[in-house]
Amino acid sequence: MTDNRNDSILARVNFPEDIRRLSLAELGRLAEEIRELMIETVSRRGGHLASSLGTVELTLAIHYVFDTPRDRLVWDVGHQAYAHKIITGRKDRFGTLRQKGGLSGFPKREESPYDVFNVGHSGTSISAAAGMAEARCLKGEDFRIIAVIGDGAISAGMAFEGLNWTGDRRKGMIIILNDNEMSISPNVGALSSYLNRIMTGQTVSRIRAEVKTFLKSVPGIGEQMLKFSRQVEESLKTFFVPGAIFEELGFTYVGPLEGHRLDPLIKNLENVRQLEGPVLVHVLTQKGKGYHFAENDPSRFHGMPPFDIDTGEPVNGGPSPTPPSYTKVFGRTVVTLAEEDPRIVAITAAMSEGTGLDQFAGKFPNRFYDVGMAEQHGVTFAAGLATQGLIPIVAIYSTFMQRAYDQVIHDVCLQNLPVVMALDRGGLVGADGPTHHGLFDFTFLRTVPNIVVMAPKDENELQHLLKTAVTCGGPASLRYPRGAGLGVPLDEKPTAIPVGKGEILMDPPAARIALAAIGSCVYPALAAAERLLSEGIPVRVINARFVKPLDESLLCSAAEEIGTLVTVEENVRMGGFGSAVLELLAEKGITGVRIRCLAIPDEFVQHATQRELRSFYGIDAEGIAAAVRQMLARP
Amino acid sequence: MTDNRNDSILARVNFPEDIRRLSLAELGRLAEEIRELMIETVSRRGGHLASSLGTVELTLAIHYVFDTPRDRLVWDVGHQAYAHKIITGRKDRFGTLRQKGGLSGFPKREESPYDVFNVGHSGTSISAAAGMAEARCLKGEDFRIIAVIGDGAISAGMAFEGLNWTGDRRKGMIIILNDNEMSISPNVGALSSYLNRIMTGQTVSRIRAEVKTFLKSVPGIGEQMLKFSRQVEESLKTFFVPGAIFEELGFTYVGPLEGHRLDPLIKNLENVRQLEGPVLVHVLTQKGKGYHFAENDPSRFHGMPPFDIDTGEPVNGGPSPTPPSYTKVFGRTVVTLAEEDPRIVAITAAMSEGTGLDQFAGKFPNRFYDVGMAEQHGVTFAAGLATQGLIPIVAIYSTFMQRAYDQVIHDVCLQNLPVVMALDRGGLVGADGPTHHGLFDFTFLRTVPNIVVMAPKDENELQHLLKTAVTCGGPASLRYPRGAGLGVPLDEKPTAIPVGKGEILMDPPAARIALAAIGSCVYPALAAAERLLSEGIPVRVINARFVKPLDESLLCSAAEEIGTLVTVEENVRMGGFGSAVLELLAEKGITGVRIRCLAIPDEFVQHATQRELRSFYGIDAEGIAAAVRQMLARP
Repeated sequence: MTDNRNDSILARVNFPEDIRRLSLAELGRLAEEIRELMIETVSRRGGHLASSLGTVELTLAIHYVFDTPRDRLVWDVGHQAYAHKIITGRKDRFGTLRQKGGLSGFPKREESPYDVFNVGHSGTSISAAAGMAEARCLKGEDFRIIAVIGDGAISAGMAFEGLNWTGDRRKGMIIILNDNEMSISPNVGALSSYLNRIMTGQTVSRIRAEVKTFLKSVPGIGEQMLKFSRQVEESLKTFFVPGAIFEELGFTYVGPLEGHRLDPLIKNLENVRQLEGPVLVHVLTQKGKGYHFAENDPSRFHGMPPFDIDTGEPVNGGPSPTPPSYTKVFGRTVVTLAEEDPRIVAITAAMSEGTGLDQFAGKFPNRFYDVGMAEQHGVTFAAGLATQGLIPIVAIYSTFMQRAYDQVIHDVCLQNLPVVMALDRGGLVGADGPTHHGLFDFTFLRTVPNIVVMAPKDENELQHLLKTAVTCGGPASLRYPRGAGLGVPLDEKPTAIPVGKGEILMDPPAARIALAAIGSCVYPALAAAERLLSEGIPVRVINARFVKPLDESLLCSAAEEIGTLVTVEENVRMGGFGSAVLELLAEKGITGVRIRCLAIPDEFVQHATQRELRSFYGIDAEGIAAAVRQMLARP
Repeated sequence: MTDNRNDSILARVNFPEDIRRLSLAELGRLAEEIRELMIETVSRRGGHLASSLGTVELTLAIHYVFDTPRDRLVWDVGHQAYAHKIITGRKDRFGTLRQKGGLSGFPKREESPYDVFNVGHSGTSISAAAGMAEARCLKGEDFRIIAVIGDGAISAGMAFEGLNWTGDRRKGMIIILNDNEMSISPNVGALSSYLNRIMTGQTVSRIRAEVKTFLKSVPGIGEQMLKFSRQVEESLKTFFVPGAIFEELGFTYVGPLEGHRLDPLIKNLENVRQLEGPVLVHVLTQKGKGYHFAENDPSRFHGMPPFDIDTGEPVNGGPSPTPPSYTKVFGRTVVTLAEEDPRIVAITAAMSEGTGLDQFAGKFPNRFYDVGMAEQHGVTFAAGLATQGLIPIVAIYSTFMQRAYDQVIHDVCLQNLPVVMALDRGGLVGADGPTHHGLFDFTFLRTVPNIVVMAPKDENELQHLLKTAVTCGGPASLRYPRGAGLGVPLDEKPTAIPVGKGEILMDPPAARIALAAIGSCVYPALAAAERLLSEGIPVRVINARFVKPLDESLLCSAAEEIGTLVTVEENVRMGGFGSAVLELLAEKGITGVRIRCLAIPDEFVQHATQRELRSFYGIDAEGIAAAVRQMLARP
């Protein structure tokens, strides 16, 4: 590893104080060494490589200039914070990244005092920093606060709410806009660098005053302009800074700065450090910087499985090809359904590839909408489309659908509109951890009237339930797991399953227990039942398919005929599928049934592989079988 | 009523087509008659008077200029749409406003083809309209789309997401910004009116070009400016329009227009009708316009109970003074607690008076934050404050907390921060109807790990549970009903109740059934139990207080000792308090208990009084007693 080389700078760096002693040349070499460590580690562990490669110099410059952790550094989303982790006391543990018990892929207060706010979802940093700014004021303290937010995340509505607040309150706070879109052409750099030396050198006011005087002296149109004095004042800003929109929101705008040149970055941040009030620093960076495969395809290297450093290709787990992912089958099915029905349109929130809708986008570009990181807008936008007779499929990861909960209730379900919510990454997602698990959706969705809530047992059933969703005539949701499908044969044609219709998968004579499972837990339940049968314990296995409406007769008859029931789901127990079954039995007055709900208990789930987590929480075949044995062993 | 007078214009107006035949003078008289009808009706029925008084001319102008309902008119929030209702076929039913079975206080598609999108929460109109714009494009249609949004609602993050999308897509759409803050001084009006005649007359491009040529000809600074050609282009806009921020987002900005002068309003809208692409029309209106009590105190006349037209004072229900509202007791308690503990700060989202925090704001202005209609920011801002050792109380109505669900999960609970969520208007809110009932919070909050979920039985217990919340050391929520408390004596000092500790309120010997109630249902349960006792049916009554954590021993012992249990709550049944009790019994292996969960069934609840709704859904004393009798009558 890099830091074992004799001439390694990184070997000497453990904390930001070590960085502050380095020369500029050494900082440059340190950046390269950090990149090597990141590439090497992520190639083995997987992770968010492209974003973190893009912020190495920015991270060094911030920690160089600011007195962290006394000065508070809040990362937005946080997948760009690997360099931050490496230089804040976690270099030696960096190899444990995203492993069970190892470092989180995101900043986490429990991990380090340098991580001042836990992140994972987009757009939270400004509000969090604004809270810290008010607390500083109330407590009479004087630290600096820096929030780093990407140009994607800043488009989230809550980021705008934060900007709107911060600009108005005038409290000192530095927002660094990490702009990696390269939407501003490179030759702007020199001009902006010049402008910003002026800006941060505080001579801008003088220049503005000069221009004003000059304009006054111009006859005719000059005078006329000055009549609109406020507008002129506003517009003078735009002569000198390209960030007028931020200036109008109350920020001092600095930028754009080139994000990979340490010298001007540090000089500018040193100037920014002296400014009063809210400041927005616009920094241009390149995703994937320093690793050419990532530079050329930053999207693929956003969240990356282990890969070969020399080729940039994922390391294959074994000789047999992985079954197609749920995502892929979903994407393919949307295309199939859209070919049949011109009313179908599809929406994603900045996740074309992640949701598999890139296939659809290629085939039906006019019927595809990427709304950016704006889940709230995405869902209500879908409702608007639906009022005009279209059938929108909104594909959003389960965890991000939490952001649009009010829109699901108020705009979709209250109007009973045919909007399909496709929740990828439902259940345990693995290495991304607690901010990204999709463990609440069964509960928060089934709570809402009018919606149909489904989860397929495999990628083939996904096809059929998606067909069900688009034909059911009202709001519908469909959640499916992250990762590979089960490799089952795929029917050629998606066929709607009647709403609320489950199925019995196994029904040996004299069953002693019924297992009612849903979604990703159906096959494990089946495997458990087979194991139990071989031990002489016959088990009926039900694939519920629908969390809402439940297949009442299927579930009630199992309860009444067998008397012992175990529900299994990859959702929190609180209010989930099992809870729905309990409600059903209570409502029907079916008493005396022994019932146990296997689900995720009432705690946030840490990061580990999906397999590890399913085993830990007892919802894999072994855990289910053990629960059944234990239940039957009790009197 | 106005429309019965011989010379009434309103008598001749039933639909917008009738308006389009009127002269300008007649339109002016119509506006006055509509105001009279609104004031007269709201004085009897209660409602959102100030907002609707402010938009009378705007409403007439829109329907005059545009071909509604072919052209789609989307109101944001919708409490400003009374004039719209009156002139779109609902004049004769306007007296039924907000009554059971009568007109809704908000636009509603079920009511009229002129209502194209159901609203109630803020910031949804732009996204909905954007969906309609894309649908129009896909279907090859050519109607116009107009969204009317207030300056308060446009600060909601999702409105920004909508703007950001709409400006970029360049589809034709008109957003009318109804600005009633009067933050722009009146003398701007003339200038802006002038500017807008230029703008909408499409000569602005010519003028811009002239200015550009002129600047080129100026030596020295003029030339220097032109080097920054893009910035110059941008800034030229600001010389002629004050809405640079909207222009930068891709909109043609028109305004500010005076919103109470029909002639220029109509002329400008006629010009706007011809413009391509997204247009933002900035209209200045006065809340409460035309009724001086409302003009002078628009905040009080926002949502108003029945009042005396001559005095503007609420009509008193009877001779005895109403007990203080939950809101008032909450506000007072926050002050008391804040006096003891300097770490307590309070946050509202544009509802200082509605939440009762105005008392606190007056006493501790430095510790009070009104974040505007930005619930997402408000919650994460609170999380930021909490990381610095403060204890924020975030007071948001239950229905609006849906907007911040992800922030509650991801920023508060995941970090286990001591943020108190005070949910006013929990349960059935009455006349505001389905968009405003707070019926989901028990479920969506108890789903989240780490949070304590509470509901007091009366305003005195509210004090104690609020003390519990601020001292429990982690996330806590507290929900309480809209309206008057029960008039119980108030203890002088709020005292924390141990977390998860319920109480038995009535325990006659040989109880045949246990009633476990929470929040607003506790006293009705007690009244039911007293009635039942008088009929010879002894009932144990439990005040659960905590939805999470449950008082396990209290509930389990009731189930085991008595064997028949009825839970009662003012929340949806799906995943609510009753469901939590079912989960508990299943987890503890307590079988054979007959249990029934009284709650709101799986449907959206329409508007009516709280009393009517509680009776309809069987969660008042009579309904509870009936349910118990029925349950005991079954074998």
